[in-house]
Amino acid sequence: MSTSVLDKIPGAKPSGVLMADAIRVLSMEAVHRAKSGHQGMPMGMADVATVLWTKFLKYDPSRPDWADRDRFVLSAGHGSMLIYSLLHLTGYKSVSMEDIKSFRQWGSTTAGHPEYGHTAGVECTTGPLGQGLATAVGMAMAERHLNARFGDDLVNHKTWVIAGDGCLMEGVSHEAISLAGRLKLNNLIVLFDDNNVTIDGYATVAETGDQLARFKAAGWAVKAVDGHDHKKIAAAMRWALERKKPVMIACKTAVSRRAGDKEGDKHGHGYNLMDDEIAAARRHMDWLHEPFTLPDNVKKAWLAAGRKGTKVRKDWEAKAKSNAKFAELSNAMSGELPADAFKALDAHIADAIATQPADATRSCSGKALAALTPTLESMIGGSADLTGSVNTLVKGMTAFDIDNYAGRYVHYGVREFGMAAAMNGMALHGGVLPYAGTFFVFSDYSRPAIRLGALMGAKVVHVMTHDSIGVGEDGPTHQPVEHLASYRSMPGLHVFRPADMIEAAECWKAAITAKGPSMLVLSRQKVPAVRNTGGDLSAKGAYELSAASADAKVTIFSSGTEVSIAIAAQKQLEADGIPTRVVSTPSWDLFEAQPDAYKASVIGAAPVRVAVEAAAKFGWERFIGENGVFVGMSSFGASAPADRLYKEFDITAEAVVAKAKAAL
Amino acid sequence: MSTSVLDKIPGAKPSGVLMADAIRVLSMEAVHRAKSGHQGMPMGMADVATVLWTKFLKYDPSRPDWADRDRFVLSAGHGSMLIYSLLHLTGYKSVSMEDIKSFRQWGSTTAGHPEYGHTAGVECTTGPLGQGLATAVGMAMAERHLNARFGDDLVNHKTWVIAGDGCLMEGVSHEAISLAGRLKLNNLIVLFDDNNVTIDGYATVAETGDQLARFKAAGWAVKAVDGHDHKKIAAAMRWALERKKPVMIACKTAVSRRAGDKEGDKHGHGYNLMDDEIAAARRHMDWLHEPFTLPDNVKKAWLAAGRKGTKVRKDWEAKAKSNAKFAELSNAMSGELPADAFKALDAHIADAIATQPADATRSCSGKALAALTPTLESMIGGSADLTGSVNTLVKGMTAFDIDNYAGRYVHYGVREFGMAAAMNGMALHGGVLPYAGTFFVFSDYSRPAIRLGALMGAKVVHVMTHDSIGVGEDGPTHQPVEHLASYRSMPGLHVFRPADMIEAAECWKAAITAKGPSMLVLSRQKVPAVRNTGGDLSAKGAYELSAASADAKVTIFSSGTEVSIAIAAQKQLEADGIPTRVVSTPSWDLFEAQPDAYKASVIGAAPVRVAVEAAAKFGWERFIGENGVFVGMSSFGASAPADRLYKEFDITAEAVVAKAKAAL
Repeated sequence: MSTSVLDKIPGAKPSGVLMADAIRVLSMEAVHRAKSGHQGMPMGMADVATVLWTKFLKYDPSRPDWADRDRFVLSAGHGSMLIYSLLHLTGYKSVSMEDIKSFRQWGSTTAGHPEYGHTAGVECTTGPLGQGLATAVGMAMAERHLNARFGDDLVNHKTWVIAGDGCLMEGVSHEAISLAGRLKLNNLIVLFDDNNVTIDGYATVAETGDQLARFKAAGWAVKAVDGHDHKKIAAAMRWALERKKPVMIACKTAVSRRAGDKEGDKHGHGYNLMDDEIAAARRHMDWLHEPFTLPDNVKKAWLAAGRKGTKVRKDWEAKAKSNAKFAELSNAMSGELPADAFKALDAHIADAIATQPADATRSCSGKALAALTPTLESMIGGSADLTGSVNTLVKGMTAFDIDNYAGRYVHYGVREFGMAAAMNGMALHGGVLPYAGTFFVFSDYSRPAIRLGALMGAKVVHVMTHDSIGVGEDGPTHQPVEHLASYRSMPGLHVFRPADMIEAAECWKAAITAKGPSMLVLSRQKVPAVRNTGGDLSAKGAYELSAASADAKVTIFSSGTEVSIAIAAQKQLEADGIPTRVVSTPSWDLFEAQPDAYKASVIGAAPVRVAVEAAAKFGWERFIGENGVFVGMSSFGASAPADRLYKEFDITAEAVVAKAKAAL
Repeated sequence: MSTSVLDKIPGAKPSGVLMADAIRVLSMEAVHRAKSGHQGMPMGMADVATVLWTKFLKYDPSRPDWADRDRFVLSAGHGSMLIYSLLHLTGYKSVSMEDIKSFRQWGSTTAGHPEYGHTAGVECTTGPLGQGLATAVGMAMAERHLNARFGDDLVNHKTWVIAGDGCLMEGVSHEAISLAGRLKLNNLIVLFDDNNVTIDGYATVAETGDQLARFKAAGWAVKAVDGHDHKKIAAAMRWALERKKPVMIACKTAVSRRAGDKEGDKHGHGYNLMDDEIAAARRHMDWLHEPFTLPDNVKKAWLAAGRKGTKVRKDWEAKAKSNAKFAELSNAMSGELPADAFKALDAHIADAIATQPADATRSCSGKALAALTPTLESMIGGSADLTGSVNTLVKGMTAFDIDNYAGRYVHYGVREFGMAAAMNGMALHGGVLPYAGTFFVFSDYSRPAIRLGALMGAKVVHVMTHDSIGVGEDGPTHQPVEHLASYRSMPGLHVFRPADMIEAAECWKAAITAKGPSMLVLSRQKVPAVRNTGGDLSAKGAYELSAASADAKVTIFSSGTEVSIAIAAQKQLEADGIPTRVVSTPSWDLFEAQPDAYKASVIGAAPVRVAVEAAAKFGWERFIGENGVFVGMSSFGASAPADRLYKEFDITAEAVVAKAKAAL
């Protein structure tokens, strides 16, 4: 297909191909100017995107946050000029022509990869391949859930994804598509940019699988289409909207379409069109306008496509406002907490202060959830096939499933990465507050999504249990050692490791209240109560849990299950005439944010500082100084009952006492 | 199928089912005694394993390290009692009946999950699901490569994998099977334990995909079989051996087979057979022997199966010894370096000392590889579809591919996790030294395999480029911040961040010489030479790169691309009359291993200590103390040219100078 003869007439209604050429030219010119980026995919998928954004996608450029809009996710985020072109052309204020000219420059909205929160209209930060698709699954899940809760009139939209060869090679794509297939998410449509070009050359250098057969095996409806034939693309999209399953359309495209020699070429993926090739491509497209200039008719046609959505949005609003559930939906979408959000939790804390229960902190977390989830209806739980172990299922919750999308518990399967990405997608969609659990050691599997969630500020709670050698018999493959350090060093993520029932409840409250994602790190094994006061002390990140009898000679810092070891050591040291205080450090990042004076008072002035944590020492110097005493792990763990491991690895009150004395 | 009537006759040759019952009973009893573990899979797959280990698998219990043995990987590692039973029954010395009785106890060889290096006969540490399968792909690749290099007479064996529902839900399984399918690894056979039970219940709670269709789409030969019918299992295995592709056999099994009520039940996965159920299962199997006691005929039949392999191994040895390439194979398998391993590299270092080249450290790494790989024929490179960017392809290397398994460069595709796991598998197989590259930020994707490699001590080199905001325009999704801290805290992994051509070569030498896995963290952007001396200083982890003109008032610690910033700051401070020294810290773990006196001398006594690194501060306190000055990142990065980002995030010589002065 090429532009029509009518396109030669200035001012005539442009053909779809001419409209797509506008994307192609903007993309090619922005990349050329930045000397960086990728024109290959935007030029290749320009036709598909034009059909989608002019005929199918439900969006209103004047209200990027309209609740019932379709979600569009550019999973192949390196093709960012595609979405920037679309946002600019359809009239989003977030992307001006100046921004297009400043592609990939400091402060512009046209960052190298699309960034959620940075550019209105970008629904999801993408670039790390495969994750856009996996995040979109979460968006589609959230939509189905809210649809079940609020009805078709308020919530009824699609999630559209553009994914490339790279996305589909990533493992997370498997977790995403098998989960979506299992849940029959008929509101999810993936447009596969089937261009057979990756960075190393033609995709076949590394991939010869049959993607259509693969998606079909996962329970999807599939179809292949010529990705440059506007009519066939439109027919495929119409067909997709009628399926009762998620849909994958493989769009056969040529990378750097209409860029002359680089069209369909393995060198057409990223920035490498030189001046003469840009000129040739412009001639090839009959595009004779100045750089970064659009002809009026093309500009008008694109803006008109955007304006169509404004009417749809207004119609929805008019109907929605008379819907009895509209206020409730708006509340849910706002993410604001109800006034009584923590009433039951506070009562639970009061009870724990009174009864001083011994429990595993995973179980403490489960009890906090039991106090939170009845009030916080937006909370949607789940686990990666470890429901009984991670205490995320609250009694009375039903499974989110094909015949019950209103259910609030997701069986994610053994898909840690897909789970974390789906949670991000739910949070980005809005209206739900997802939390889900797996073993802490397997947070490694979900780490890329945990990072992306931290970068996006997606409000989710990762419940990570079995948090140390306390796992016991399962051995070193299942025993985290370096994980606390590895997450404490991640920007934007709140990490909590509570010590008992009270701290666990406080940490949940802090997680629910905090901006962005949180992680609760919890034990398999039972620990005694270590607190008998309220005061929401965990919110300060670290605090003096137990004072010394006189000017402290020793301060013991600790978190989680080792706080009780610190308390036992304190008793022994005090009995031996050594005034000792104990500091609990449930959240290093919240502590870091406290005023310096508070921090100094918590660190204290004791001549000997000891840290005890069943984890790597890495990072503890900030509490104990470079010459402080550390009682913890310096290797991987081993397989044996937990008590034995604590003894063998010398993480005991006796070790703390002996080392503290030696340092005095 | 059940035991035959002949099995009632004491001393008669046991049926296959009776032999499988031995596995079932040992597994069930060991788990029962440990009150921990999983009898479900070992009992379900006992029949398949019996057929495999008595009729097909090539192994010699008296030589667990025989080079041409088949590799057996229990990807579903929680079923560890299956392999411990097999090792014990076939006569491996590593697993005695006492060990079986001590399942999951401190010091026993029967750890909770199979551990490579801990128990002879265990080829791979498993437990983190999906990874056994992905590791096995690497083993099969190594085998095909060595076969191409040494011929059928020396190297010609299979890799067999048992994988469960959980393994196949994990994303890494997709990367593994699509890579194996692409490479047509006809020496790889996966036995899928198709039992439809996971921890959350029946697998269908989370998975309804068609696994046979899925593997077929990835280019595998597939077949389903009754996993309790010995004849049909054997026929399927014979069929598998004749395919020209990797093979997946879906073995329909019942979890906790022959355990009465729990057979095939969703509660039959893990430990939960109580005393009465154990008794009932024994009655059901007609197994009337004392616990942990085997009837003589069963014992003998199993030992005979093991001994068959001894003969096969001896025949191989007899033939191998007269093969001209035998010594070379033995050398390769031993992992010993040739005497002239570093001759070219040393010359390259001498040249760099003389010429002081400015270069990106990724390019420095590429040049070190060009000096190493011609001599070290075992080195097999690759990348996750970033060949041109990560500098891992040395001129003259050809692609490892279907028609050229002798090739030494692997196009892993966009499969970071699968790549890292495959590298582990190659290293475990032996005979090759794998290295491969991706962007440092995407090390998050491969992290679970990097960890498992560190735990196993698998000798691989992860080449991680684009190591900071120096990535520039690609933005925060592509800019590592917390990654250095996250890997420096991982036990068993050597992390190197070289500053220039000389350090890059030294770090490669250290990585090749070191035990276990290494990671080289390298820059996209060009940096000046900072060293003009030899002396293999990087091997000490940290060292004084540039002395102060007098008693130092300031020490600046740095690594990688920021060392040149440190040097520039030193010049300015010295010019301002402030004696300043610079310490380069290419490897924290190697530094940690130095004598205390050396460490103290490197840390020095300057009153002001500054660290500059374009990464998170986390962990730097060990060099600069808790009140030291840090110049680096405290948030995610942004999209803009690299120079601009260094300025905006204030990681400059000026910032170092100003902050050092303020602290004086």
